[in-house]
Amino acid sequence: MGNKIYSETKYLKIKEPTKLKSGKILKSIDIAYETYGKLNENKDNAILVLHALTGSAHAAYYHKDTQKPGWWDDMIGSNKAFDTDKFFVISSNILGGCYGTTGPASINPDTDKPYALDFPVITIEDMVNVQKKLVDYLGIKKIIVAGGSLGGMQALEWSIRFPKNVKSTILIATSARLNAQGIAFNAVARNAILTDINFNNGNYYDKKHPESGLAIARMIGHITYLCEEAMYKKFGREFKEKPSFDFGIDFQVESYLEHQGRVFVDRFDANSYLYITKALDYYDPIKEYGSLENALKDSASRFLIISFSTDWLFTTAQSKQIASALIQLNKDVSFVELESKCGHDAFLLEFEKQTKIIKSFLRG
Amino acid sequence: MGNKIYSETKYLKIKEPTKLKSGKILKSIDIAYETYGKLNENKDNAILVLHALTGSAHAAYYHKDTQKPGWWDDMIGSNKAFDTDKFFVISSNILGGCYGTTGPASINPDTDKPYALDFPVITIEDMVNVQKKLVDYLGIKKIIVAGGSLGGMQALEWSIRFPKNVKSTILIATSARLNAQGIAFNAVARNAILTDINFNNGNYYDKKHPESGLAIARMIGHITYLCEEAMYKKFGREFKEKPSFDFGIDFQVESYLEHQGRVFVDRFDANSYLYITKALDYYDPIKEYGSLENALKDSASRFLIISFSTDWLFTTAQSKQIASALIQLNKDVSFVELESKCGHDAFLLEFEKQTKIIKSFLRG
Repeated sequence: MGNKIYSETKYLKIKEPTKLKSGKILKSIDIAYETYGKLNENKDNAILVLHALTGSAHAAYYHKDTQKPGWWDDMIGSNKAFDTDKFFVISSNILGGCYGTTGPASINPDTDKPYALDFPVITIEDMVNVQKKLVDYLGIKKIIVAGGSLGGMQALEWSIRFPKNVKSTILIATSARLNAQGIAFNAVARNAILTDINFNNGNYYDKKHPESGLAIARMIGHITYLCEEAMYKKFGREFKEKPSFDFGIDFQVESYLEHQGRVFVDRFDANSYLYITKALDYYDPIKEYGSLENALKDSASRFLIISFSTDWLFTTAQSKQIASALIQLNKDVSFVELESKCGHDAFLLEFEKQTKIIKSFLRG
Repeated sequence: MGNKIYSETKYLKIKEPTKLKSGKILKSIDIAYETYGKLNENKDNAILVLHALTGSAHAAYYHKDTQKPGWWDDMIGSNKAFDTDKFFVISSNILGGCYGTTGPASINPDTDKPYALDFPVITIEDMVNVQKKLVDYLGIKKIIVAGGSLGGMQALEWSIRFPKNVKSTILIATSARLNAQGIAFNAVARNAILTDINFNNGNYYDKKHPESGLAIARMIGHITYLCEEAMYKKFGREFKEKPSFDFGIDFQVESYLEHQGRVFVDRFDANSYLYITKALDYYDPIKEYGSLENALKDSASRFLIISFSTDWLFTTAQSKQIASALIQLNKDVSFVELESKCGHDAFLLEFEKQTKIIKSFLRG
């Protein structure tokens, strides 16, 4: 325990109503957030890191209560990619999530019961608007934003939505919009949750949760986060023991997916999975603004874009699409495709390669 | 109706017991089959076409009862790839299937009830052994075998198991074994069926079937049969109407998958889906024989191997693996990768390209 640094999740209550992209209104919003490092006097050393589909505000250090390290602990800390000796790093749980920020499991002030499906459908634009309220509260005018996957989409949206507030944008394993295959996987995942007998139109909080459906959703996710190379390297076609000649777990890859599904249902809310995947599907600044060039034209940010060679969910071609738009606009943009055998998961695994590039970018 | 040729499904009862790879025994087996064209006097013009995961014996012509064309009707017929003016084409439903050949929905003679999960786990080797009984019954000693996907695995197994009986082998969009990702997708599909509240340990034949689980399995399948290029071409990111801001169907690709899932549950048995995907997972002659070279060393067959450029379920690399083994063995082998935007589905869609190559191969 000696050298462990602990973090604490804090909460900010937004008391005024927030209008969402759908036109609906949330009367109040809680934001769960953590910070690492110190904000300097000029308040110009802040980095907002943005989490992916199932992340939380707990991005770094060890959590006081759970004793668990943050999801990007290898990237955030003293002398790490996001160096807390220099930077003030902020991480918050997204709107619609289930780790402290208001979401479908939160109490609806109108009914004193969990929102469930009365929670309004939220978008990445809404998530970013809520994050802006936190950043404003902290008194920060100029900020660096960074994230992978869904987190990268939020970072992109920050630079579109608040073009003068973002100094630097780091987009990792992300895209300006999900491709049709990504929408398809999300649709099947949601279908598994929605058709689970325990789903009960989202009103399951005092009953058995739709665990089977959520586990299937997670298994589908994990297949897309890995790639065949990574799966082959990890599991090959190895049997767990020997052929069972029944419908139990036969192969190591089955065992891995079954485990991932099982542990996930203990830590994540099925309704949040519905809302967040829908936000992923909807995000499309190309359609929204007519073109990426138009969306990004006012941005004063520098950009670092990182993709991974075996990522087939958020492909290098999709990263290049963003880079191309920025080059067209004569923006300051660096693009790197990193060789990796880890598929989409690489942004959570390939620390050394990312650290080198991010450090250099943040120095520059 | 004028020029439609009709087919009729016939049945062969195998009355003696059949020992399976698992060691279990099936006391009797019904085989559903169709034939097209005429067997010549020498009985040496027969082609056995082998169907994929959800196929049936009805491969060509219009079915008398359903009025529907066969699943490979564009490939089988007068002057088509498998030319019924020259060849006698045989197609049978696989063991474990649900279109007339004995499977989990069939009556267990020991209980007079459907087998359900008392049906023994079957393998591709078992399917092929049963097909051999049909071919023997028809008095055919030398045969041509052809199939795509799971059908290709059966064709490969024919040339391994009956090396002197197979004259020519046509392997399309197939592999000597499923890769880890393929096993993973099957595992999730089976999980969806097994955890459906209506599954009832497979005993659902007189009740509501596990339709939600089977629909999810089918949706997952369809994502793997297409490819991102095909999905983008077919659906892009187009909304069905406009954003719903709820969890109904939003995107055209969702609508497509939902439809595919819905129609599938009316035509396929969930237990068969379990058994056949398990057979797919288990098949591995490389492990069984130590190497493909060893598995194929006695084969007297010529080989034609066709892969499709965008097929990511059964990749070109996997086809090349078979071709390489055959080249090592100095066998007569032709390998072609066809350019296609249809993904794995190409073997059911790209008729013109396949026809040209198959005709030329069958002439040679």
